Amino acid sequence: MTHPDPRMGSIGIFDSGFGGLTVMRAIRELMPHENIIYFGDTARLPYGSKSAETILRYSLENASFLATQGIKVLVIACNTSCSAALDEVRKASNIPVIGITEQGVEEVVRLFPDGKIGILGTRATITSGIYQQQILSRCTTLELFAISCPLFVPLVEEGYVEHPMSALVVQEYLRPLKNRGIKGILLGCTHYPLLQETIQQELGPDVQLLDPAIACAEKTKALLEEMNLLNPSSTLPHYQFFVSDDPEKFRLLGKAFLNYPIEHVSQKC
Amino acid sequence: MTHPDPRMGSIGIFDSGFGGLTVMRAIRELMPHENIIYFGDTARLPYGSKSAETILRYSLENASFLATQGIKVLVIACNTSCSAALDEVRKASNIPVIGITEQGVEEVVRLFPDGKIGILGTRATITSGIYQQQILSRCTTLELFAISCPLFVPLVEEGYVEHPMSALVVQEYLRPLKNRGIKGILLGCTHYPLLQETIQQELGPDVQLLDPAIACAEKTKALLEEMNLLNPSSTLPHYQFFVSDDPEKFRLLGKAFLNYPIEHVSQKC
Repeated sequence: MTHPDPRMGSIGIFDSGFGGLTVMRAIRELMPHENIIYFGDTARLPYGSKSAETILRYSLENASFLATQGIKVLVIACNTSCSAALDEVRKASNIPVIGITEQGVEEVVRLFPDGKIGILGTRATITSGIYQQQILSRCTTLELFAISCPLFVPLVEEGYVEHPMSALVVQEYLRPLKNRGIKGILLGCTHYPLLQETIQQELGPDVQLLDPAIACAEKTKALLEEMNLLNPSSTLPHYQFFVSDDPEKFRLLGKAFLNYPIEHVSQKC
Repeated sequence: MTHPDPRMGSIGIFDSGFGGLTVMRAIRELMPHENIIYFGDTARLPYGSKSAETILRYSLENASFLATQGIKVLVIACNTSCSAALDEVRKASNIPVIGITEQGVEEVVRLFPDGKIGILGTRATITSGIYQQQILSRCTTLELFAISCPLFVPLVEEGYVEHPMSALVVQEYLRPLKNRGIKGILLGCTHYPLLQETIQQELGPDVQLLDPAIACAEKTKALLEEMNLLNPSSTLPHYQFFVSDDPEKFRLLGKAFLNYPIEHVSQKC
């Protein structure tokens, strides 16, 4: 599906499931007239516990699916996908590709010239070393504490955001960061902003939490501007949601991530 | 692949991932000369949080894969798969199919003529109502307390079995069962036996925990005997392991479930 005017094309976003909706939310708030197509691979989530090879394969499939939907830019809103597949997806795509991890790196380097920074992510993201390598290659005066938090995604996907179990699990994972003079925490997984309050409470008000979603939205806007691809229309945008598992569950749970009602979700065959 | 002597064929077992290895362990201990082919769908796990339609599709694919491997009986060692797909897999198979849920039902009914019983399972298993319906259709004098414990699988798959987080999560899920005069707990997911000690500690020594794995192994033996399909060989058996994600991770983590070293694992293409 291609559009006569390429500016009317959609921003494509994919994630392993619901988490990327926090990125869509930021994009929507910054560019309220852009059409968006979102794909959540809910039948195969979570990605964070799987191997780099499998994550690469899934990510290429997702990018290829969105490419057939007439998108003008692709946003990989899944840190785990970026950690295993950003370069390969970029090579395979003939449209610009934005990876959320790159915006995470930018944010850390821009805000913290030095000091101790915590990086939270899935097991796959932390093991890949993507954040550690890219941040330290830009700024050697930072001291990084990378922690994989494999239970955060199931906690969020199962809806335990305000449940005492979340507080207990957050406490357990963040123990090595407490009273260490940490200045900032990078939320290196799109599910983690939903645990933001619990994390902030655990570490105290002096620690700054960074959610790369907003930087990711800003980068998307800048890129579209640069390529003269911003949608000139001022009518209501068109949002399309595709998932690989149950559309209804996604429609109901997705609201909390998107902060906006989801009307219709299609199942990708 | 077929064998000239059908008795030399393998017992096929599938599960969403590692959990079914607890069933393979019971089968191995009871029938040490049987060849076994195990498939773990590690690239798409967990099943318990997914829709019945998706679980059905995955289960039919898994059964079909094992059918091509020359198996003489199929054991569905995944409660979630049974809850969504046991009848359909049976219809589609031309070999006998044993479902672990049926053995769970048998065990409860055999051991408890009356009293309060807790049923623990994944969200899909508990929502399906398979255990509740089948147990109550056999014995109306039991009072059932069915609880879905969606974090147990990630806890076990992530290796937190003896971690304080497991104790905290177990405590949280079992709260409604404490001091209620519960006589028995059915571990309605093959991952849960790995949390057996923690669960027992939480509920006290008077509560009997039921793991259907042993009954499942006994049922498999009885069926093979009845069909004259027991392997007459007294040589060392041949075990084959297939997974859909990283074979090495499965090889390393699988030991804890199987209680036996795993030598070689192949990736199913």
